[in-house]
Amino acid sequence: MSSNFLHSTRDHKFILKEWLDLEQILATERFAGGYSVDDMDFILDNALKGAREMIAPTCEDSDKIGCRYENDKVITPPSMREAYYFIQNNGLCTSNYDPQDSSAVPLCVLWSWLEYLIGANPSLSTLYLACGGAAGLIEDFGNDYLKSTFLPKMYSGEWAGTMDLTEPSAGSELANLATRALPTDEPGVYKIKGTKCFISGGEQDITENIIHLTLARIEGGARGTAGISLFVVPKYLSDESGNLGRFNDVTCGGIEHKLGLKGNPTCIVNFGEDNNCIGYLLGEVPGEDGIGQGLMQMFNMMNEERLMTGLSATALAAVAYNNAADYARQRIQGKATTNPKGGQVAIINHEDIRRSLLMQKAYIEAFRAMVISTFYLVDIKNHHGDKEVVKKAKDRIEINTPLVKAFCSDFALECISSALQVYGGYGFSEEYPCAELYRDARIYPIWEGTNYIQSMDLVGRKMTMKKGQVFGDWLAEIKAFAGNTQDNSVFAADFAILNKYINVYDEIQVILNTWRAESREDLVKVFATRLLHATGKLFGAKLLLEMALIAQVKCNELGTDHYDYPFYSGKVASARFYLRNILPDLAATLEIVKNADTSAVSIDERALGVII
Amino acid sequence: MSSNFLHSTRDHKFILKEWLDLEQILATERFAGGYSVDDMDFILDNALKGAREMIAPTCEDSDKIGCRYENDKVITPPSMREAYYFIQNNGLCTSNYDPQDSSAVPLCVLWSWLEYLIGANPSLSTLYLACGGAAGLIEDFGNDYLKSTFLPKMYSGEWAGTMDLTEPSAGSELANLATRALPTDEPGVYKIKGTKCFISGGEQDITENIIHLTLARIEGGARGTAGISLFVVPKYLSDESGNLGRFNDVTCGGIEHKLGLKGNPTCIVNFGEDNNCIGYLLGEVPGEDGIGQGLMQMFNMMNEERLMTGLSATALAAVAYNNAADYARQRIQGKATTNPKGGQVAIINHEDIRRSLLMQKAYIEAFRAMVISTFYLVDIKNHHGDKEVVKKAKDRIEINTPLVKAFCSDFALECISSALQVYGGYGFSEEYPCAELYRDARIYPIWEGTNYIQSMDLVGRKMTMKKGQVFGDWLAEIKAFAGNTQDNSVFAADFAILNKYINVYDEIQVILNTWRAESREDLVKVFATRLLHATGKLFGAKLLLEMALIAQVKCNELGTDHYDYPFYSGKVASARFYLRNILPDLAATLEIVKNADTSAVSIDERALGVII
Repeated sequence: MSSNFLHSTRDHKFILKEWLDLEQILATERFAGGYSVDDMDFILDNALKGAREMIAPTCEDSDKIGCRYENDKVITPPSMREAYYFIQNNGLCTSNYDPQDSSAVPLCVLWSWLEYLIGANPSLSTLYLACGGAAGLIEDFGNDYLKSTFLPKMYSGEWAGTMDLTEPSAGSELANLATRALPTDEPGVYKIKGTKCFISGGEQDITENIIHLTLARIEGGARGTAGISLFVVPKYLSDESGNLGRFNDVTCGGIEHKLGLKGNPTCIVNFGEDNNCIGYLLGEVPGEDGIGQGLMQMFNMMNEERLMTGLSATALAAVAYNNAADYARQRIQGKATTNPKGGQVAIINHEDIRRSLLMQKAYIEAFRAMVISTFYLVDIKNHHGDKEVVKKAKDRIEINTPLVKAFCSDFALECISSALQVYGGYGFSEEYPCAELYRDARIYPIWEGTNYIQSMDLVGRKMTMKKGQVFGDWLAEIKAFAGNTQDNSVFAADFAILNKYINVYDEIQVILNTWRAESREDLVKVFATRLLHATGKLFGAKLLLEMALIAQVKCNELGTDHYDYPFYSGKVASARFYLRNILPDLAATLEIVKNADTSAVSIDERALGVII
Repeated sequence: MSSNFLHSTRDHKFILKEWLDLEQILATERFAGGYSVDDMDFILDNALKGAREMIAPTCEDSDKIGCRYENDKVITPPSMREAYYFIQNNGLCTSNYDPQDSSAVPLCVLWSWLEYLIGANPSLSTLYLACGGAAGLIEDFGNDYLKSTFLPKMYSGEWAGTMDLTEPSAGSELANLATRALPTDEPGVYKIKGTKCFISGGEQDITENIIHLTLARIEGGARGTAGISLFVVPKYLSDESGNLGRFNDVTCGGIEHKLGLKGNPTCIVNFGEDNNCIGYLLGEVPGEDGIGQGLMQMFNMMNEERLMTGLSATALAAVAYNNAADYARQRIQGKATTNPKGGQVAIINHEDIRRSLLMQKAYIEAFRAMVISTFYLVDIKNHHGDKEVVKKAKDRIEINTPLVKAFCSDFALECISSALQVYGGYGFSEEYPCAELYRDARIYPIWEGTNYIQSMDLVGRKMTMKKGQVFGDWLAEIKAFAGNTQDNSVFAADFAILNKYINVYDEIQVILNTWRAESREDLVKVFATRLLHATGKLFGAKLLLEMALIAQVKCNELGTDHYDYPFYSGKVASARFYLRNILPDLAATLEIVKNADTSAVSIDERALGVII
């Protein structure tokens, strides 16, 4: 795929410089005196250049050679090492999480350029993306020893960080967690024993040390998720001078042979097979009730991983779209509808190719707006001085997070499959870029909490939190935008469509609330996935139309001959297409919700599971 | 995947014995005195046993070893050879196309069991599936020499047959065909020169000869598709005694490295590189107008290949569903909504898993009913004595063919992706069956005419043929069924839903006809894919409800304790779920069609193709 990386900074510049109020973040104490909004051009261009020149050429090795597991070791494809250090040494990832780093950028900027790095080599990304969140947990909950021992080398990327939740019998259901932590004589230090699976980068040969943020149950801890605590478990301990100390009995029990992300070692990690693995408790020792802080802490990191997942899905869909559009401009075949007796034309002239490409483009711009604006809210939450503003940002993040994770990853797959289809027979060939993207992106609806877990997080938890106020405010913002139509005569029809489907969405909510009032949890659960999709489609429509208003002003200013006119008019076209071709799916959702069919629940298990 | 092949004959027995009037086919002159309807049990069971024991164990080799290309030769994984001959020597495939074979079965029976063989090893299937159609072309259009030389060894499977249409610059657009045929002194014998690509089984090491049915343009033939003729081009010629003669200068220029179907060699085939390749013209020499019969002839075969594609998609979706349902019954995780304080339960108890499985089941039963009933119509067409009955069958086949190809293959992908999701993280592992199925099935929306070509075949050609009468009759059959509600009080609500969406579909048709009246070909083309999907969804609903009526009678007869009750009640549940959860998608289609958005057509190409 190396030569097939196609991406641009154009849309991110629009998002950061013209749509979001980035100035508000750059003016906070954390970033004041550093970058200006105008610096974004250089910063993003530079990151894209790095992605293109240094990362994309390693993608083919990562996928085609993949990782090997030999003698308890993981061997990564050789080119990945250099690519990893290019990113970390150039301040392109984990260093931005260091609160002391004066050259760090806001998350909304960081994750804009990370879209390029991820798109350039999806497998590699899992090795550097988790470290910032892991370091953040040590920053937030660690004692001085942990901070001074681990953080400098994690921020520099010298040591990697991972998140170790899943166990063979505790995937989506963390309550089953069996990894144990036994107290030692030293406070805060525990012996760890257990096996984790599906650990991205759980073992590798790129960094000299790996810091595992590991969930375990302290001996005597409460049952279920309440008894879980979080531990810092390094592969190697540190000696007194801060250098690599003894091996900490953390071994790799094997790697998965996967559909995609083949350069990412997905590991079984064994802790304490020789009873010699220690872990440092993060935060408080559980009290007599045995209740630990682990899950709460892990969710700090997990929420960012969920945004990361939505962003990764967006990245891969964008690379697929950009390549498909490029191919469609070059591939000559068939005649134009408007000139059937003329010569053959590039396939981008064919109606169905155009429909497919514009569908992809509209979705991707909606995904990206959703993801980056949510990272922007995280920046607000982390750095803004006004408590009310912070509270509002927190509330919005609660709703946006499951949407970013599940809506983007589900529909990114559809986009990538459509991009693949643009290539005809060549789409099925691994010599063209979409085949790998189609494989790689299939993980995103699964990991970091399956998309059903996201749906239940949204529908079962977030929509009802604080008596529905958090979600009500979120929806009110969309309605306020849609109601503010006075200055938008050019978009009158578009606002009318948006308002029509807001009403449809309200009808869906009324029915959903009836189910809740009647304690019909079965219905809520059976419809959760479809309700999340409908909510995401509505949210995407609002974001696209909001951006289209800005883009239209620029169109008027620049005139059709300006080199940047296609970009702006393309933003308007994306919004218009999405409103007329994707948002109406809510009409079907409403009819389906009205049917309130529970046959999937009531069907006899023998009938459901009959082999057909 | 070898140990993961899970399939059953139950649904096919229902289709052949309880739903379709198979007796009508078995009583025709072709089959009279042979099998009875009751023989279907043994026949299907036997084929499934063969698929499970002889074919499924070869699947892993086919996928994981794949084909290699070395020194102009293709090397297939060793186990494929034995599997191929097991199928052919046991009368499981091509021999059934031999009109002299008294043990041959009708196509609707043959393609029922082929679902098992295809599902057991999707890659292998491409090596034996095309030969029947190729032989059929020689049977229909060949002279005595061609028939006596090629047919016996093709029917026995000793020699393979392929279909050679596509060229590097003539994929979807056959008018560009550049392969040439030059007359020799011998009538009907031509020198062939050209290169074909994407030829499934274009070269392999399993059969001693390969008979290529090859499209080429006779020197001086008309331009475009009109000038194309069809040739029988064997890899080796036959000597006078009918044995393998000289090499016919047909070479393999390479194979594709593909996303899936890795055991199927997808070849570049070079004809006449040494100017020493001869082909036998099928049918008439073009007259002075240069118009050949090639495309018409090829479509004879192509239409069956399209049904084969829908069937293959169904096969893979069924294997994915059967495995996912089995896994869901065994995998213990999480607690039941109805008993949150109880122990953990198998995930088949979780609402979203049930929704996903029932969605898959309903779709698969709709696909299968669509495919097998269409093969049944082909049997009627081929063998029925009554011209009126034959004409009606022909008309139905016209409409059904693009639906079977595109509707089944598009939504089978959705089903397989949903099955993969049931496995959580294990779904992404190649050790579990869905990963390969997800890769393999991605070809079906592409080959044998992309699904957009199917959509345009349906919307642009079939719906309007004979002034719309063919499609009108087809739709009238659905309406007649839906209108006949008097005896179906148990299904009153179901008929009401079906009728509601027939009305929605009619509204869509009214708008579509307005576009046609206004010569808005751009709109027809932009909406073709969505119109095909809507048509397929309606058709599926009718078929499922029709089968549910029969199944409900059996449910009443058997009582809930009967071992077969779950199967029949499951058929009813599939129909009910589909009507309430899938058919309402037509409501969205109607709103989208009403919007008649042409932004995808009108958008500036620079804006559509802007790299984002």
